[in-house]
Amino acid sequence: MAKGASISGFPEWLPSERVVEQRVIDTLRKVFELNGFIGIETRAVETGASLLKKGETSKEIYLLSRLQEVGHESDTPIEDRLGLHFDLTVPLSRYVVEHSGDLAFPFKRWQIQKVWRGERPQEGRFREFVQADIDVIGAGDLPDHYEVELPLVMVSALEELRAFGLPKATVHANNRKLSEGFYRGLGLTDIEGVLREIDKLDKIGADEVVKLLVESCGATEDQARACLELAGLTAADGAELAAKFDDLCAAHGIAQESDAYVLARQGLDTLAMIVDEAAAIRPGSVIADLKIARGLDYYTGSVYETFLDGAASLGSICSGGRYDNLASQGNRKYPGVGLSIGLSRLVSYMLHTAGAHASRVSPAAVLVAVWNEEDRPAANRIAAQLRARGIATDVAPTAAKLGKQIKYADKLGIPYVWFPASAADGEEGAEPSGDEVKNIVTGEQVPADCTSWEPDTVVAQQSVEI
Amino acid sequence: MAKGASISGFPEWLPSERVVEQRVIDTLRKVFELNGFIGIETRAVETGASLLKKGETSKEIYLLSRLQEVGHESDTPIEDRLGLHFDLTVPLSRYVVEHSGDLAFPFKRWQIQKVWRGERPQEGRFREFVQADIDVIGAGDLPDHYEVELPLVMVSALEELRAFGLPKATVHANNRKLSEGFYRGLGLTDIEGVLREIDKLDKIGADEVVKLLVESCGATEDQARACLELAGLTAADGAELAAKFDDLCAAHGIAQESDAYVLARQGLDTLAMIVDEAAAIRPGSVIADLKIARGLDYYTGSVYETFLDGAASLGSICSGGRYDNLASQGNRKYPGVGLSIGLSRLVSYMLHTAGAHASRVSPAAVLVAVWNEEDRPAANRIAAQLRARGIATDVAPTAAKLGKQIKYADKLGIPYVWFPASAADGEEGAEPSGDEVKNIVTGEQVPADCTSWEPDTVVAQQSVEI
Repeated sequence: MAKGASISGFPEWLPSERVVEQRVIDTLRKVFELNGFIGIETRAVETGASLLKKGETSKEIYLLSRLQEVGHESDTPIEDRLGLHFDLTVPLSRYVVEHSGDLAFPFKRWQIQKVWRGERPQEGRFREFVQADIDVIGAGDLPDHYEVELPLVMVSALEELRAFGLPKATVHANNRKLSEGFYRGLGLTDIEGVLREIDKLDKIGADEVVKLLVESCGATEDQARACLELAGLTAADGAELAAKFDDLCAAHGIAQESDAYVLARQGLDTLAMIVDEAAAIRPGSVIADLKIARGLDYYTGSVYETFLDGAASLGSICSGGRYDNLASQGNRKYPGVGLSIGLSRLVSYMLHTAGAHASRVSPAAVLVAVWNEEDRPAANRIAAQLRARGIATDVAPTAAKLGKQIKYADKLGIPYVWFPASAADGEEGAEPSGDEVKNIVTGEQVPADCTSWEPDTVVAQQSVEI
Repeated sequence: MAKGASISGFPEWLPSERVVEQRVIDTLRKVFELNGFIGIETRAVETGASLLKKGETSKEIYLLSRLQEVGHESDTPIEDRLGLHFDLTVPLSRYVVEHSGDLAFPFKRWQIQKVWRGERPQEGRFREFVQADIDVIGAGDLPDHYEVELPLVMVSALEELRAFGLPKATVHANNRKLSEGFYRGLGLTDIEGVLREIDKLDKIGADEVVKLLVESCGATEDQARACLELAGLTAADGAELAAKFDDLCAAHGIAQESDAYVLARQGLDTLAMIVDEAAAIRPGSVIADLKIARGLDYYTGSVYETFLDGAASLGSICSGGRYDNLASQGNRKYPGVGLSIGLSRLVSYMLHTAGAHASRVSPAAVLVAVWNEEDRPAANRIAAQLRARGIATDVAPTAAKLGKQIKYADKLGIPYVWFPASAADGEEGAEPSGDEVKNIVTGEQVPADCTSWEPDTVVAQQSVEI
C-alpha cells in the first residue's frame, strides 16, 4: 500500500497520545456515572430531515451514498438520505422520542462519541472529533434545579482533568429570560436580533455593537447603551447579581411590576441559584456573566460557556444550556438541559500546550525475555501467570541478544524485564537458581516467582504525566 | 421533532442493553492490554483509493459528500473522495505506513471501533457495527510464533465473555501454505480457484464441489476427491495432524522431497505449533480444521475462524489470519497477523439468545430523597459526599411523595434510597435523629452516615447478569 496521506481536519493520535485521550474519556465517564448519568451510544447516521432541522450547524453535514449509487445520489431527496451526525443533541432528541416508552424520565444520559462536520477544510478546524455530552431530558416538564446541577457535574469532571494538565475552568452562565425581559423592559422587540449583535461584543467592540443595534434592531442610542450595560454585568453570588440588576432596571425605568421585569426576574432567580449553589460547593467555579449570548436564540433558559484560565484563545471548551423545545411527540414536549465538551480540542491542548504524556507507550508492566525460541513456551507460561494476576505482560518478539530485548522494552517504556531461569542460564557466567526480574529504570535485579511477585505500585499501571 | 424512525441495519441499544455492550468492550480492552496490546483509534474515513484496494468488501463503501457538494459529487473521482472504513484492517495498514517512524515494531495493537458497510438494506445484516481487532505488524519480517499467540489471546478474551452468556468458543485453524503445497503436489495450479470452491463445501456439499473443481479448476475427478480428503482432515494435536497429512500425501504420491511437500510442511509445522501450544494452555480451544478456506486467497499463512458451541447459525464470530502483504513502503514490507471480532453481532446474541442483561439501568447505587425543594442543597451535599467516596449517587428529581421517589429508584434499579434527616422528619410519625438508608429490595432500613456508610459489595456496582 502506498504511503497514506493524512487528511486535513481528521486528527489521529499516535499510540502515546491516544493513552491521554483514553484516560480523559475514562475519567469523564467515571464522573458522569458517579453522578447517576446513564451511558448511551447512538448510531452515527440520521436522516437528512432530522439533521437539517437545527439552524447553522445543519450546513455542515456529510451525506452518505453507497458506492453503487454514485451518479444517482440526486435521485433521493436530501431529507431521505442518510448523513453523519454533527453533534450529539440531534441524535439524543430523536432517541428520546423513538424510545420514550422504554426510558425513565427525567432521563439523565452521558454520551461520548465522534461527530462530523462537513466543513471546507481549514487550518485548525476539525471535521471529525469527539464530543462528551451530558443532558437531562424531562417528559412534559423539567425542574429548574437541573440548570444548577449540570454545570456543576461538568465542573467536577473538568476539575479531575487538571491532573492531566488542564488549567482551572470557569463556567460563565447567563439566562435567556433575564436578557429578554430586560430588553423588553427597555421597549425593544427584536430580541433575537439584539442577542445576535451582543454576541459580537468581544470581536468588534462596544461602539460597533451600538451602531449595529441602532441600525438593525430598531434601538435608540440610549437603549443600545443600556443593552451594553447589561452585557457588562458579572456577579459571583446571587445577592450581588440581584442588586446590580435591580439598579440597572431602576436606572432605565423598568418597573418591578412590569411583565418584562417578572420574566427577567424568573431568569435571574435561576441564575442566582446556580452561582450560589456553585459557590457553596466549589467557590469560583461558576460566575454570572451577562454578555454570554451565543446560542441564546436557541436556548430558552440558562446558557453556559466555559473558559480555561490562561487559554482564552481556545474559546469556550464546554457549552450548553436549557432548551424547552428539544423534541416533541404529539402534545408531549421533552425539555432538556445539557452541556457538551469538545473533547478532541481539549486533548489537543493537553498534549501540545499542557505537556500531558503517557508514562509509557505499552500497557505492559513486564517484558518476559526469551533466550532461545525453544524456551518461548516457558516464557508464555510465565506471562500467562502474571496476566492471571492482573499484571499486563508482553513477551519478547524474538530470542535476540538480551541487550536488544531490553532495548525493545525500553522503547515501549516497559519498566520490568523478566529473566526466566532457562533464559538467564544462557548468559555467560550467569547461573541463577530461578527466575529474576530487573527494573530497567533503576537497574535493580531480584529473584522473583511469577506466582507471587508484585511490581512497584507506582509503575504497575500505564498513566498520564504532566 | 417528529417521531424518528429506526433505520434498517443501524442497530441502537436501549440503555440497559448498552450496559452489556459497554461491559463487553471493557472486558476485551482489559484482556488485550493485559497481553501488551497498544490501543489506537483511527479516523472513520479513508480515501476511496485506499478503500477500493481490498477485494470483495470494497463494494460495500459509503462515500461522503458535503452538503454543499450535492449534485456535484461526480466532479471528484471516487479515488479522491472520502469514504467510511468498512473494517479496521485497511485503516491499520495505512496508519502503520503513515506513522512508521513513530512506532516500535513488532507493533501490537488493539482497536475497538465502529465500521460501516454500504450494503443494500436486508434483514439481519448490520450496516453499522462495532469490530474488536488485535493485530501484530512487523517491519520487514514477523516471527511465526505470533500466529500461535494471537488466536490464544482471542480465546482468553472470549473465555471472559462466558460470564455474559457466551457459549464456549473454538478456533478452527488452517494454513494457506499447507493447502497450496498439497494442491501443487497433486499437480493443480489454480490455487485461488480451488480454495474458492472448497469454501463452498458446507453450503453445496461434496459432490457439487467436486463438479466445480473439475469444471472450473482443471482438476481430474481423482484430484478433486483428494482436495476433499484434505478438507475433511481435522486434528487436536500436532502429531495427529502430521501423521494424517503424511498418510494423505503418501496415498496421493506426494513425495517428501518435493518443493510442494516442503511448502505444505512449513504450513503444517506452524499449524501443529498452534494446536499444541493451545492444547497446553487451554485444551480444546483450537483445532486444526483443513476445510477452513475463507480468505485463503488473501491470507498468506495461518487462517482462523471461530465458532460458538450450539450457535452454528451465527457463523464465525472471530476471524483472521496472517497476511504478508498488508502494507509496504518502498522496499519495506509490513507483514501482519490479526483477528477481528464482530462485536455487535456477539452482543446481539448475548442479549437476545443468551439472556444477558444489566443488573440495573442506572449506574447509581443510591438515590438521595428530597422531601422539600428547600432541602435539595442538603441532599446535594450528601450525594457529593457519597460520590467523593466512589459511590455512584443520584438525587430525586422532585420533592414528590416518598412513594413516588422510591418508584423512580425502583424503575432505574437503584437499590438504596437515602433519607436525609430533614426529609425523614417530614414522614408522618417518623422522628429519626439522623440520616437513614433503605435497601428497597430487602426493605432493610438503617441509620447511616454519608461519610462512612458502604453499600453491600454485591449491589454497589452495576453489573451484567445472565
